[in-house]
Amino acid sequence: MNYRTDLAIERKEMLDEDGKMPNLTEGIIMKKIDYGDDITVTRIEITDPIGEVKMEKPMGNYITIEAEGILEEADGIKDKVEKVVAQELKELIKFHYYLNVLVAGLGNPMVTPDALGPSTASKIKVTNHLFELFRADGDDEMSRVSCIMPGVTATTGMETAEIIKKTSELVKPEVIIVIDSLAARNIERVSTTIQITDTGISPGAGMGNNRTGINEETMGIKVIAIGVPTVIDATTIIRDALIENIESIEKVEKYIEEYDRQMIVTSTDIDMLIKDFSDIIANGINKTLHPGIYS
Amino acid sequence: MNYRTDLAIERKEMLDEDGKMPNLTEGIIMKKIDYGDDITVTRIEITDPIGEVKMEKPMGNYITIEAEGILEEADGIKDKVEKVVAQELKELIKFHYYLNVLVAGLGNPMVTPDALGPSTASKIKVTNHLFELFRADGDDEMSRVSCIMPGVTATTGMETAEIIKKTSELVKPEVIIVIDSLAARNIERVSTTIQITDTGISPGAGMGNNRTGINEETMGIKVIAIGVPTVIDATTIIRDALIENIESIEKVEKYIEEYDRQMIVTSTDIDMLIKDFSDIIANGINKTLHPGIYS
Amino acid sequence: MNYRTDLAIERKEMLDEDGKMPNLTEGIIMKKIDYGDDITVTRIEITDPIGEVKMEKPMGNYITIEAEGILEEADGIKDKVEKVVAQELKELIKFHYYLNVLVAGLGNPMVTPDALGPSTASKIKVTNHLFELFRADGDDEMSRVSCIMPGVTATTGMETAEIIKKTSELVKPEVIIVIDSLAARNIERVSTTIQITDTGISPGAGMGNNRTGINEETMGIKVIAIGVPTVIDATTIIRDALIENIESIEKVEKYIEEYDRQMIVTSTDIDMLIKDFSDIIANGINKTLHPGIYS
Amino acid sequence: MNYRTDLAIERKEMLDEDGKMPNLTEGIIMKKIDYGDDITVTRIEITDPIGEVKMEKPMGNYITIEAEGILEEADGIKDKVEKVVAQELKELIKFHYYLNVLVAGLGNPMVTPDALGPSTASKIKVTNHLFELFRADGDDEMSRVSCIMPGVTATTGMETAEIIKKTSELVKPEVIIVIDSLAARNIERVSTTIQITDTGISPGAGMGNNRTGINEETMGIKVIAIGVPTVIDATTIIRDALIENIESIEKVEKYIEEYDRQMIVTSTDIDMLIKDFSDIIANGINKTLHPGIYS
Repeated sequence: MNYRTDLAIERKEMLDEDGKMPNLTEGIIMKKIDYGDDITVTRIEITDPIGEVKMEKPMGNYITIEAEGILEEADGIKDKVEKVVAQELKELIKFHYYLNVLVAGLGNPMVTPDALGPSTASKIKVTNHLFELFRADGDDEMSRVSCIMPGVTATTGMETAEIIKKTSELVKPEVIIVIDSLAARNIERVSTTIQITDTGISPGAGMGNNRTGINEETMGIKVIAIGVPTVIDATTIIRDALIENIESIEKVEKYIEEYDRQMIVTSTDIDMLIKDFSDIIANGINKTLHPGIYS
Repeated sequence: MNYRTDLAIERKEMLDEDGKMPNLTEGIIMKKIDYGDDITVTRIEITDPIGEVKMEKPMGNYITIEAEGILEEADGIKDKVEKVVAQELKELIKFHYYLNVLVAGLGNPMVTPDALGPSTASKIKVTNHLFELFRADGDDEMSRVSCIMPGVTATTGMETAEIIKKTSELVKPEVIIVIDSLAARNIERVSTTIQITDTGISPGAGMGNNRTGINEETMGIKVIAIGVPTVIDATTIIRDALIENIESIEKVEKYIEEYDRQMIVTSTDIDMLIKDFSDIIANGINKTLHPGIYS
Repeated sequence: MNYRTDLAIERKEMLDEDGKMPNLTEGIIMKKIDYGDDITVTRIEITDPIGEVKMEKPMGNYITIEAEGILEEADGIKDKVEKVVAQELKELIKFHYYLNVLVAGLGNPMVTPDALGPSTASKIKVTNHLFELFRADGDDEMSRVSCIMPGVTATTGMETAEIIKKTSELVKPEVIIVIDSLAARNIERVSTTIQITDTGISPGAGMGNNRTGINEETMGIKVIAIGVPTVIDATTIIRDALIENIESIEKVEKYIEEYDRQMIVTSTDIDMLIKDFSDIIANGINKTLHPGIYS
Repeated sequence: MNYRTDLAIERKEMLDEDGKMPNLTEGIIMKKIDYGDDITVTRIEITDPIGEVKMEKPMGNYITIEAEGILEEADGIKDKVEKVVAQELKELIKFHYYLNVLVAGLGNPMVTPDALGPSTASKIKVTNHLFELFRADGDDEMSRVSCIMPGVTATTGMETAEIIKKTSELVKPEVIIVIDSLAARNIERVSTTIQITDTGISPGAGMGNNRTGINEETMGIKVIAIGVPTVIDATTIIRDALIENIESIEKVEKYIEEYDRQMIVTSTDIDMLIKDFSDIIANGINKTLHPGIYS
């Protein structure tokens, strides 16, 4: 059953359901960390091509942060999750005197469930021009950070991956951080989950805006992607309904295959979700890149 | 089969499919007008309680404007549809020297598929303060127009109907025009259809923000509602899928009944749709209310 | 010299400059509090009509919070100022089980220097509908809060004061909190100062949108106004220039008096200012009204 | 007297006031065209280095479109001005089967008087991806159009000129159209004037965001700039005031020179201005680039 999801943790759950994974240790390493306060982190590493095939995702690290109560603004929960984001991100990006980073907020700011990237990008502390101004080659307290909102192909006419690559030529970063909306299988994931990965953005992820991947292979440098599920594919809720009511899996899959509507399913409080999660991710990034300013 | 739709024309289509309507003339009058240029208008009048029960909609007039090619920006199509909106609206609101109108743009401006109302309202030519300033009791070229964006209960804490009623007490209009996003059954309707009705807004229409109706009964004066389908209920696409694959209608309806996710289905180019349709409706209203300025 | 300012502290400074105030204790009481971390609070009380005439402001309390480094995002400064806002606000609004508050975000969200009110309002935790839903008469942890963005007369056609009064009839609050952009005399004030007052909003304050005051007299209940200077009157920078270059004050004042351009002066980083100060004020209000949730 | 202005027509007016221009024909050619309906077009050509020095602007063509009544939405005025924009633009950009254009909307969308560029860009019909999709090498009805909103250095950390140049490498356009807010000397110009020039954007124009020029020299291809004055420099209104009141020009200039506030002066209805002028310019561009669609 080929549910669409951009989350490694959901792909892993599907494998477990299917019982397709006889040997857990072959190609996939998984570790859970309890941060307390209803915050859990699951680190999944896909270590070889067998893991890739099983997980239908490229080799690399996938960190899933799960937290309850963010939209309800439970006491201090946003502060706590920000700190976890920073802590996990620091494992992938080590701050040093010369650290130079390009942040790219993907998606269409005019379509609410696709606005996570631009909304987060607008809250990033950008410093590249200050380094230029003061002719500084580095700093002990903050990184050299540039930021771009490349828009979507429907409004730019261009491939997002190509715009980022060209921008990257300008500022020559050591690492690119891309932020994007993701698609989940399970509606419960929307508003509780953040995924951080060093494998970048896969083609067709999220709202399906990008045809080309944004990763180390296409960019030529390390790409860290941070995403939050904001949409569910229409075929996901249809498949769920069919499976519960029809015995023939083949019949279900045939119907899904022929289903060709370009539609997205999202929650009605998506505006709050985008606001809260862009705050959390931007603050997590700011703490990671500018440890002397945001402590 | 109880598909959710805010469009009278779709309810009528479902009746026809079901063959439930033995006598067309009883309670429902329907008339099609061809405006040329791929623009069709269907006027449906529900004339008595039998029609109400059949159509599951209150008695009154429902005008459906259907046009092809709006998102593709076919040559001059927006101008043409604007004129049809004005022409049909003029049947319901007659301009005169003392005409005093309150326009209310319903919905959440921060959630794209719900932003039709606020987006349209922001393009309305507002004049009430000018009449106050010049102490004019009326005008031959323009109406006295006030405008409000009442927001949604989740962000105001209040019922939208009550905010509009209170505002209406301030400016004492002869008629209220409310603009809102609607829910359709058929995805094809999204981006091709405008509905104008003198029955106002039903409770739970569109994104389901409002619990109370906004109509002549609750407001005490005539209420014209203008809407565009921007969302499909999640249960609609599920029901469609189940019906095609399961024989037992009862089983389908039972599944739907128990389905309790608060989700909306919309198209990925919803930003363009909101922009184009708010232009069209605002211009149609401006032409109707200010015939001496917008000709 | 009649500089335009909405800040009591600037009016007091002008009095001191002019030496017009022979007896400090008559009608005006002033007290400075050092909160540390470069945060100063000045509490001014105008106690009688003599103070009113001197200060050209109505009797009541004016609390000025001054802080350095907010736009530069100095470490933790926003958190600290939020706490001071909450602490001072709690002196004016005492939380209790039945506390019922209407928050009104004044100004035009589409004009950046006027967007403080709507921007803050969008970050307020609104609860009135939850109290309705659960039929609660009060709560130990949170207040009953409603929220409105009444817009500006140019886009609504109505007086803002009247919209707020009508809305207030709906929810019957104990106190109204209005947030608005203010005009300062001194450009340095922009981005460093917050004023809290129990005298409400004066006619013509800020961008000059409102002709009617929003205060206890017009609303019938207590009105707390929170403002941040975001604009300088064009005549202020002109007067400053003339005074430094011309001896005759009369000539200066005559020129200013005849100057009739409708213009505003603001800073080029006004977008950051609105973002940061709306965060601070919204969090300060949330802490005050919902002490069990935001601690 | 060195008033700041980005408008060639104002520079010419200042020359005329000063009487500095003994020989009109030397280096500057000017021609007025009356389009009727209160629309005037002035074409200024700076033909040699003497003209450059006199006008303090680079050699090239400057087309100024002046129209009354746009904000008042006088009957049909927007349609008429759109047509004039298209007509003048067609003199600079000839449509042909292979025409390939990059449109860049400069400025900060979050600061209203700086939002002309992004606001216009969002209304441009973008087609580059369609040409890619259908592997078309050209078209008889529409051009190949890409579009970018490069943001401002304060939020990207990068020079806008460099971002545009890199993007231009991607799509290899024949011409770049840049849209930007401009600074005028005379407040009357705000809301009545559009300037089109083939000399691009000068460093420090408009809100002063860009240090590098965006023109044929820096981009390597033809650059057409379209601008509308939305701000007045603070020193302009101060200088006006001082000159009227002080005899010594030297004293005035000394004061201005030492004035170092980063402030902008704009009108209070700037939101309407941005909306109307971005509509007009976008439609003018669409008519020019896609003659088969927008006639």
